[in-house]
Amino acid sequence: MVYVAIMGHGVVGSGVAEVLRKNAESIARKAGEGIEVRRILDLREFPDLPYADCFTKDFEEIVNDPDIRIVVETMGGLNPAYAFVKRCLEAGKSVVTSNKELVAAKGDELLALARKNNLNFLFEASVGGGIPILRPIDQCLAANEVYEIAGILNGTTNFMLTRMIEDGMSFEDALALAQQLGYAERDPSADIEGHDACRKICILASLAFGKHVYPAEVYTEGITKITSEDVRTAAAADSVIKLIGRAVLQEDGRLYATVAPTVISKSSLLSDVNDVFNGIMVRGDAIGDVVFYGRGAGKLPTASAVVADVIDEVKHLKARKYLFWEGGYEGYVIPHEEGTVQMLVRVADTADAAAKIAALGNVQMVEGDGVPAGDIAFITPVMTEAALDAALLASGLTVKSRLRVAQL
Amino acid sequence: MVYVAIMGHGVVGSGVAEVLRKNAESIARKAGEGIEVRRILDLREFPDLPYADCFTKDFEEIVNDPDIRIVVETMGGLNPAYAFVKRCLEAGKSVVTSNKELVAAKGDELLALARKNNLNFLFEASVGGGIPILRPIDQCLAANEVYEIAGILNGTTNFMLTRMIEDGMSFEDALALAQQLGYAERDPSADIEGHDACRKICILASLAFGKHVYPAEVYTEGITKITSEDVRTAAAADSVIKLIGRAVLQEDGRLYATVAPTVISKSSLLSDVNDVFNGIMVRGDAIGDVVFYGRGAGKLPTASAVVADVIDEVKHLKARKYLFWEGGYEGYVIPHEEGTVQMLVRVADTADAAAKIAALGNVQMVEGDGVPAGDIAFITPVMTEAALDAALLASGLTVKSRLRVAQL
Repeated sequence: MVYVAIMGHGVVGSGVAEVLRKNAESIARKAGEGIEVRRILDLREFPDLPYADCFTKDFEEIVNDPDIRIVVETMGGLNPAYAFVKRCLEAGKSVVTSNKELVAAKGDELLALARKNNLNFLFEASVGGGIPILRPIDQCLAANEVYEIAGILNGTTNFMLTRMIEDGMSFEDALALAQQLGYAERDPSADIEGHDACRKICILASLAFGKHVYPAEVYTEGITKITSEDVRTAAAADSVIKLIGRAVLQEDGRLYATVAPTVISKSSLLSDVNDVFNGIMVRGDAIGDVVFYGRGAGKLPTASAVVADVIDEVKHLKARKYLFWEGGYEGYVIPHEEGTVQMLVRVADTADAAAKIAALGNVQMVEGDGVPAGDIAFITPVMTEAALDAALLASGLTVKSRLRVAQL
Repeated sequence: MVYVAIMGHGVVGSGVAEVLRKNAESIARKAGEGIEVRRILDLREFPDLPYADCFTKDFEEIVNDPDIRIVVETMGGLNPAYAFVKRCLEAGKSVVTSNKELVAAKGDELLALARKNNLNFLFEASVGGGIPILRPIDQCLAANEVYEIAGILNGTTNFMLTRMIEDGMSFEDALALAQQLGYAERDPSADIEGHDACRKICILASLAFGKHVYPAEVYTEGITKITSEDVRTAAAADSVIKLIGRAVLQEDGRLYATVAPTVISKSSLLSDVNDVFNGIMVRGDAIGDVVFYGRGAGKLPTASAVVADVIDEVKHLKARKYLFWEGGYEGYVIPHEEGTVQMLVRVADTADAAAKIAALGNVQMVEGDGVPAGDIAFITPVMTEAALDAALLASGLTVKSRLRVAQL
């Protein structure tokens, strides 16, 4: 029997406790040993639960219990999660976490600490909820040179954009609906400003390219400025707008990483990832494009990913898993202005607009239904964002909106 | 340095040799040790290759070389692959194979032999080419009770069906085009009769449900009888026809497994898996639906999956991986007539057809454009296939075609 502790009995933590109890028999078969929850850390009390006597408010009871070999951290947030996880690893306990904020900020340090102590630190649930994505990147794609990862990483904003695209809703109405359905929190900024997606692309890029990418280095733009006019203009270009987190390896070994509303063709498989679903595309030299798709959040999918990590740690109590990345370095992530982009631009249809647009070079005009009356839309050539900004400024065009375009 | 041998220098085997050479540095980093091809078994000679001196026509040179720790089998077919792989495992060498025929027929036996000798037997490339699917099922979904697996498992037939759906091609024209493009072999029967898809669903189901499923137990129907009329009738039901391999766990622990052209809604993500791509859906109690999508064949994707397995075996030279399933038992796979189905049925529009259809119970009529003139189409209630057959026979309807419908 392997004893585990769970820190945080919220949505995910209570799901982990539930899955471990409900599927105990098949889990024991798969892990090769029974797994039992010995302690649950939470400030609240749950006297009616069958495992009510497991609860403690005192972290020391967990970290000082030599029988607890694995600790699950589902508290969320950086503090005290970071300090607690660090102390658990120092105390010789392997850790599983679903906490994307923690991994995106401190993954390199905690992985190094786990390696030093011959322990495991796993966090499959931190990206894509229940979608298996970190292991496939780490193991199955081992023979590939992965050069790009891009994905729809936040279910809340994807739900909102889907409603804007399919039902013509405004941003405000879509947000109100998402809040009403419980998909968005009362303070929705982590979702709609792109911070949640940013943490996830940081984790994916760190693992895929081997060096830590810190959230502050990633240009992050949310969906708050997306209007119905933008949605219809994208449709006129046979495309949809999705909030895409993306990391592209540059020829010099540095990384271009962004989170931004992005125009993608309807022929892209990611364009069909709707509602609260997530989809993640991995591009490698040998494998081509591989897409992983599923429910990116939710109690049971996320809990099942956490439990799968726990099972894996039980199987590897004596042998470390290879999942690892190094610290980043200053300048590893290039300034976004230096990255090459292509934009879908909508401008006022003034008398001289056509001539000004032509002066930008080889643009594709967007002719389909949906471009608002009084506007013209076009897709720019591929160039650095700095050059594009300068060209648009110099053109004298009245730019109403500009959105990244990506071939995904 | 770990020495490997490759048996079979065809499309996949030569790809493996290429990837191991081309990405040698990053592979060594990921594996923790360098990997070198020491011997390649092939009856042909390749004097111009840089590694021409590795070739041998004599299997004994491989099996008797104590320095060779890992053998890659990419010969295909059951014989002599089965005998060779068995002898390699008996000689203490771990094996990686891409050979779906071998794994579908002998997986349980070879896994048991590998376990007995504390070796690894891995075969990620045998299903879905480069798409990571076996590991995610085995590891990441460990905390789930998986109850269904369904997928588009054969790229050749999916290419043909896509041409029939999108371009209105006939079956014959689509086959000719697939052959012209090199997607179908001159003898295409393994693809179009469903045998290839059958082997793959056997492997997926064996792994997911823990007991070997043998190809002969799986009801297998190819796409040779699919007509343009069927395609248009499915479109009228807002659906498409895909060749679906499917395994569904029954309440009594037995399995329903089929390969058949299947009508699936256009809202299913699998409906957007087009051309030579594969898509595999895994359904679990906690995780919900997860879909894996990518190129299901091709030299480099498949080779990259083989090399990923080789890397994994290098990392686990002393510790066995847990991938395993038991032998099957008689009666484990239920007769397909006992499984519950729903069918899209097209009948001649005779004077009394409407009354006869109504007598079948709660049917959904298919009213959309596309049902051929002179025909009526409807979707039956869900019932066992035996009961449905009997009901259709008793109805006196002139049945022109009947296709399985699945909610995927």
